[in-house]
Formats: sequence, C-alpha cells, structure tokens
Amino acid sequence: MAELVKVAVDAMGGDNAPAEIVKGAVDAVNENPAVQVFLVGLEDAVNKELSGLTYDKERVIVVPATEVIETAEPPVMAIRKKKDSSLVKALNMVKDGECDAFVSAGSTGATLVGGQVIVGRLKGVERPPLAPLIPTEKGPALLIDCGANVDARPSMLLQFAKIGSIYMENICGIKNPRVGIVNIGAEEEKGNQLVKDTYPLLKNCPDINFIGSVEARDIPAGAADVVVCEAFVGNVILKMYEGVASALLNKVKEGLMSTVRSKIGGLLIKPALKKTLKQFSMDNYGGAPLLGLKGLVVKTHGSSKAIEIKNSVLQCVTFKEQKINDQILAKLKNEEV
Amino acid sequence: MAELVKVAVDAMGGDNAPAEIVKGAVDAVNENPAVQVFLVGLEDAVNKELSGLTYDKERVIVVPATEVIETAEPPVMAIRKKKDSSLVKALNMVKDGECDAFVSAGSTGATLVGGQVIVGRLKGVERPPLAPLIPTEKGPALLIDCGANVDARPSMLLQFAKIGSIYMENICGIKNPRVGIVNIGAEEEKGNQLVKDTYPLLKNCPDINFIGSVEARDIPAGAADVVVCEAFVGNVILKMYEGVASALLNKVKEGLMSTVRSKIGGLLIKPALKKTLKQFSMDNYGGAPLLGLKGLVVKTHGSSKAIEIKNSVLQCVTFKEQKINDQILAKLKNEEV
Repeated sequence: MAELVKVAVDAMGGDNAPAEIVKGAVDAVNENPAVQVFLVGLEDAVNKELSGLTYDKERVIVVPATEVIETAEPPVMAIRKKKDSSLVKALNMVKDGECDAFVSAGSTGATLVGGQVIVGRLKGVERPPLAPLIPTEKGPALLIDCGANVDARPSMLLQFAKIGSIYMENICGIKNPRVGIVNIGAEEEKGNQLVKDTYPLLKNCPDINFIGSVEARDIPAGAADVVVCEAFVGNVILKMYEGVASALLNKVKEGLMSTVRSKIGGLLIKPALKKTLKQFSMDNYGGAPLLGLKGLVVKTHGSSKAIEIKNSVLQCVTFKEQKINDQILAKLKNEEV
Repeated sequence: MAELVKVAVDAMGGDNAPAEIVKGAVDAVNENPAVQVFLVGLEDAVNKELSGLTYDKERVIVVPATEVIETAEPPVMAIRKKKDSSLVKALNMVKDGECDAFVSAGSTGATLVGGQVIVGRLKGVERPPLAPLIPTEKGPALLIDCGANVDARPSMLLQFAKIGSIYMENICGIKNPRVGIVNIGAEEEKGNQLVKDTYPLLKNCPDINFIGSVEARDIPAGAADVVVCEAFVGNVILKMYEGVASALLNKVKEGLMSTVRSKIGGLLIKPALKKTLKQFSMDNYGGAPLLGLKGLVVKTHGSSKAIEIKNSVLQCVTFKEQKINDQILAKLKNEEV
C-alpha cells in the first residue's frame, strides 16, 4: 500500500463546525484510501459527530485540543496565547512532520499567520501566497495572491507567477499555463509602479508562459490560467466575484417573480439553471492553498459545508503526490544560479 | 428663458461615431430646452447625420474639426500634435468658456489627459478623479477614482471623498451620502499603507458621512453611496462588474438553452428578466464625470449608443444648475482654513 497522506483538520473552525467539518473529513477518508485525517478539536464534540458515521477507524484519528480561536480574535495574539487551540495544535503537527497538510475553515488571519509562523516558509520563498481557484468561462484559474500581506514587491510577484504555474500544471493539469498580470490596460507601459516594475521580470522569466497584462474585465472570461496580483487587488477581485454574482442573481430572481408569466417560466428553467450556475461556483474547488510553506495549508471559506472540506482534504493528496513543494524548491533554486 | 447649458460633444469619438453620437446629442436637445450642443468633428460627416434629424437649429451647432484622435494613439502625443482634432477643439471650447462641458466616447486616455492639460484643474484640486456611477441593489453608487493616474496619496483620497459626496448629494439626490473606503476587511487596522494612512483623514473629516471600510463583496449590495479608492483598484472594481456580469449571463443563457423544458421557460421569462437586469446596467447612468476641472468633462463608454450620449449631455445640465464646481471650490477652501 502507498504511503498515507496525513491531513490535520481544524474540527472547530468555521461557521458549521464541528458537524460539517467532521463529516467532510470522513467523506474524504471514505472516498480515497490514501487519506488519513487527524481531527483536532474539543474531544467530546468531535466524538459526538463521529458517532453517527461509518469509516475506517485507523484513518480517522481524534486529537484533543481544549481551546478554540474565534474568527474575530486578533490573529497574532490568538496564536501566541492559545497554545492548546485546535488551529495551533494542528499547525504544529505539520511543523513536526506528523502531518503533511492542514485544512481550516476557521479564522483566515490566524490560519495565514500561523502557517507562516508555525509551519514556516520553504527556503527561498519571500512571501507565501494564498491562491484560490476562481471560476472562469474556460474552467478554473488561479488567483495569486489573495493573502493577508499587502504592498508586495516585484520579486514576490515573480515568485507567485512561478509557484502558480507549478500548481496549475500539476494540480489542475493545465499544460504550460498562461500567466497574466492584473493591469488597467493591455499595454506594457500601463499600470501602477508595482506592475510596471514587475512586468519586465515576468517577461524575461524563462520558467513561465507569460502572456502580458490582463484587464479585470477579462478574468471571468478566462484570459489567463495564473492571474498574478498583489494581495489587496486579489482580495478585491475575489470579493467582486462574490458580490456581483450575488447581486445579479438577486436581480434575476426578482425578474422571475415579477409577472405570472415569468413565474411559470422560472419553474421551468430552475433545474437547468441551477446545474449551469453550479459550474460557475467557487465551492467546487475546495479551499485556497497557502503556497510556499514547509507543508500545505488550505484555507476554506468560513461557511464551508462537508463538500468543501472533503475537496480540500483531497486536494492535499494531489499536492503531496505531485511533490509540489519539491518542484517549487527546484524552481526557486534556479533563480539563484 | 434661463441661460443655455452649452455642451461640446466629440462627434468623432467612439465605436459608433458619428451616427450615434450625433443622434444622442440631438435627442438631448429635443428633450431639454436648456441644452445647446456643439458637435465638433468632420463637417461633412456630421452634417450628413444631422440631415435626417429634426431639431431646433439654434441649439445644435456644428464646429468643424479636420482631425480625429484614434483610441490606440498615445494620449499625450495625440493631444500635442492633433491641434485640429475634434477632441482638442472641443476641450479648448470649454477652456475658453464657450462651452460649460464636454462629452466624449473617444479615447479615454486622451480625454483624461486633455481634461487636465487643456481645461485645467479647479484651484486646490490635487488630482481630478474619474467617477462613474455603478449599479447596486440599492441604486447607483459613485466609484471614485477610476482614472488614469494611479498610486494616489491619502490627501487625494480625502478630496475624492468630499467631491464624491457633493456629486451624490446634488446630482443623485442622496442626502448625507455614506462614504466608504475600499478595504480588505472591516477593521480600521486592516489594509495597505495607503488605506491605513487615509482612514484617519476620512474619519476626522467633518464634511462627509464616513462609514468606514467597505469590502469589495459588499459594494454591489449597496454598502456605500460614495466608494473611495485609488484608480488601479477602482479600475479593477469597474471591470470586474462588467466581467462577472457578462460571464454569469453567458452561463444563464447556456443554462436556458440546455433542455427543451428550460428553452420554453426561457421564452416566458425573457421580457421580465430583461427589464430587471436593465436596472442593473451601467448604461443607464450616462458617462463618468471627470471631476475637479474648470468645467465638466464626461467620458462615456467607447461603445456608447445614442441613449448614453443623451444621458451624458443631460447630466451636464444638472451639473451646471447645481453649481457643483462652486460647491467643490467651497469645500476644498474649507480645508485650508
């Protein structure tokens, strides 16, 4: 039997913890025989959720933790103080090599800070980017970076481009992924200082397939596979996806309810529409990986249900099997030669 | 009779020039007796479009210009060289006080640069912001700044907040408009350096109704009436609106065409859906004003049809009647006291 992929899961993190988290982790174990999960959290609460489920007991381990980090807590302080929290304990398991990866639907800030401070960066990585997959008309694209650290330097964006290319090629199976930098126009001379300084670095990098500037308008259409930007802009892009989609679908619903004729039509289109729109949902992809760490940290949405937790855990398997971190190390080493 | 509002229109700018531009300008004249338009462009081409239309000849004046600035031309160079272009001639009419305002569907770069260089800034204005109205679930909001100048300073963002508040209160009739700054989290300590430095300026400004940080996700829901950001971020927000809406509506269409049942439903919902989605379209609002100039410059979308040109011209009337520039001058003078 192949080596197990060991994933620590914060059983207490997220709006639907522990029920959906535990269920999602168990679903992953049941779907893939290579997965072993470590459910870190309040022992009684976790065991209670497990009691109704069927699974291979050797691949679902409960790790007791007596504290929980809340979403509203200041991240740095929370990590420093709550040593016996599910989040800190789980991250320490990755640090100590007991686990390969960590999945969390809990505090984004604490997950990002903890990933960097506890697990630590791979040699040569300047800043670990948080890189969610976003839906486009041509399939998923990687938005890199959406993390907590803003005001990036050009050399960081160059690393994001390399790391993102490795991820898309190996995890999503996109050969020679197209790398674009988010800009306010297509021409090379456009942009803010960061983009202007980064552009030539990307253009001259032999390791990536750089296609130039990408305007935000063209991202949802699928203009690039790896969408490079600094975290503030990445956050705006990610949240505009959610915001515009939500407002627009509210308008569609309002339109459907506005006349008798449209109400009948609405009933007829519902199943087909639901199916198509699902293809355009973020939830399909599991969580966003925090890349460039000595191990993998995956942050899923606070409102994650079992399906997202399962997909996030399964993502860790591909990540380990494809030896993503070895590839990142190799690419960044190239840089120094 | 009240004084006429004189609007110079670039008859040659935009994908649908001169036909739709001329038609839109004439529509504005026919709708509002206070409007006089100056159609600046190639004389024969403009007259040919006018020949089929009915209008008050004293309020539609053709101003011959022999050159046209193309969208792809470098803006600064184009303005310097093409002195007899429709764009430069029209801007000079505003500068010389022959016209109150200028409407253009042509080159964004040339319009923005020309507005600043030829018409000039109002006293005290650090940088004139381009401020389109964007649709939200609660009605239009002003996105300020989406201009060509990026890497803004905190003092500029403070001015955007003041100028934007005057605009929303007087043009859109929103009393005490809510001002938010685009940020990656709701807390005051979040953000990049620019946002962190700007936040206290906004918080301590007595002239505006500052409600704090606004996450991009909440903009389409209508979280603020005046959405303050620097131009790079503003451009990303504006274009994500277009991009996500377009991709999502493509998916909706795809869903509607996927089964026989949904096709029938699609026919039934079409009229109601069209009507509701129209309320969520940018085209309703006319163009984006470039604020803080000695005169008004309105930039409409390159693909503008007559309706957008008409709305842009009519916007100039409210702008003059409400004495927006006097109000801006007064607010910025306050600052210095």
